[in-house]
Amino acid sequence: MRLRNVKGAKDVIEKSDYIINNYYDYKGKFNLLFNNDNPIHIEIGMGKGDFIIGMALNNPSINFIGIEKFDSVLVRAVQKLEGQNIPNLRLIRMDALDIDNVFFKEVECLYLNFSDPWPKERHARRRLTSDVFLSKYDSIFRDLCNIVMKTDNRKLFEYSIMSFNNYGYSIDMLSLDLYNDDLTGNVQTEYEKKFVEKGNVIYKISVHK
Amino acid sequence: MRLRNVKGAKDVIEKSDYIINNYYDYKGKFNLLFNNDNPIHIEIGMGKGDFIIGMALNNPSINFIGIEKFDSVLVRAVQKLEGQNIPNLRLIRMDALDIDNVFFKEVECLYLNFSDPWPKERHARRRLTSDVFLSKYDSIFRDLCNIVMKTDNRKLFEYSIMSFNNYGYSIDMLSLDLYNDDLTGNVQTEYEKKFVEKGNVIYKISVHK
Repeated sequence: MRLRNVKGAKDVIEKSDYIINNYYDYKGKFNLLFNNDNPIHIEIGMGKGDFIIGMALNNPSINFIGIEKFDSVLVRAVQKLEGQNIPNLRLIRMDALDIDNVFFKEVECLYLNFSDPWPKERHARRRLTSDVFLSKYDSIFRDLCNIVMKTDNRKLFEYSIMSFNNYGYSIDMLSLDLYNDDLTGNVQTEYEKKFVEKGNVIYKISVHK
Repeated sequence: MRLRNVKGAKDVIEKSDYIINNYYDYKGKFNLLFNNDNPIHIEIGMGKGDFIIGMALNNPSINFIGIEKFDSVLVRAVQKLEGQNIPNLRLIRMDALDIDNVFFKEVECLYLNFSDPWPKERHARRRLTSDVFLSKYDSIFRDLCNIVMKTDNRKLFEYSIMSFNNYGYSIDMLSLDLYNDDLTGNVQTEYEKKFVEKGNVIYKISVHK
């Protein structure tokens, strides 16, 4: 589904005021884009944007940058944003592998929502919580490294807890069944909405180092 | 149920060859009891003994010591063992709070199975995975500290993962649904059998430091 081609998507995306096209130019100084020094939170794999748009609306004194690789879903986020004025939100079309070339010591919190589980063991290093990525994230964080993750994929979640633990992260919050815990402040993603309706258990973890 | 009085239990327990009555005398030298230097594994809260008896039978070159506070369940383990010859198994009737007065640098692995969840926040320090207990365990382990835990209690498991993590333990194995994972070598406890029949999810974690 994610790979479905949407005609004209690339063009729509590039023309949106929310999209940062020349994102390499802002490495270490993304605050200039927002004209303030508010903390910057990013989401990798923002999909159609429900989470990051909701978070930006709920938290006007935090700057949000959503990252997405696929035009076909990013274009849906861009379309939702047409005619809306959310000054603390920007989006980048890029591959997460490039994250440490784009940001430098300026991110306060990273959200990973329903990321690709890459279930095959030989693809483990492609998971966004593998040590390959955790080491990239090290250079993008300003002070503390904060990561907040949600998923319904048990295997990915088990792997991620172990990966965070073995990389030296401390766990601030852990829920093995988010929808039977306190949901205050929870903003749903598109996938989350679907999976909750299907009755899947939703896992959440919040870590720092 | 655990607290039901079983008439004559104390007497039956004290007379069993499996029970170590003078356990304080063996601090730091429990190997003398077994007449060998095989590794010592202990289970805190062994209940009616299915797990530790099964483990002892399956692993003759490991010495197992089961610990239980309550006569009413310990007597059932003792009764099961009547007429059996399992040289690598001994039992102690004691409170886990006393663990660091009983063992010293001689345990290789600690099992915590379906421990009391102490659900109230004000009782958190009584959980067998609280830092109160983790600090006691530090002095009983010989080299590596290995802890293996199973439970069906979600809140206790979340708490324990966080507690292990924040105490510096590394996670070797984690299952958020043991009965949908590889069960090779799994030995059931009495509670586990019941909970699995009820359809409860069983969690397992194995950690070391």
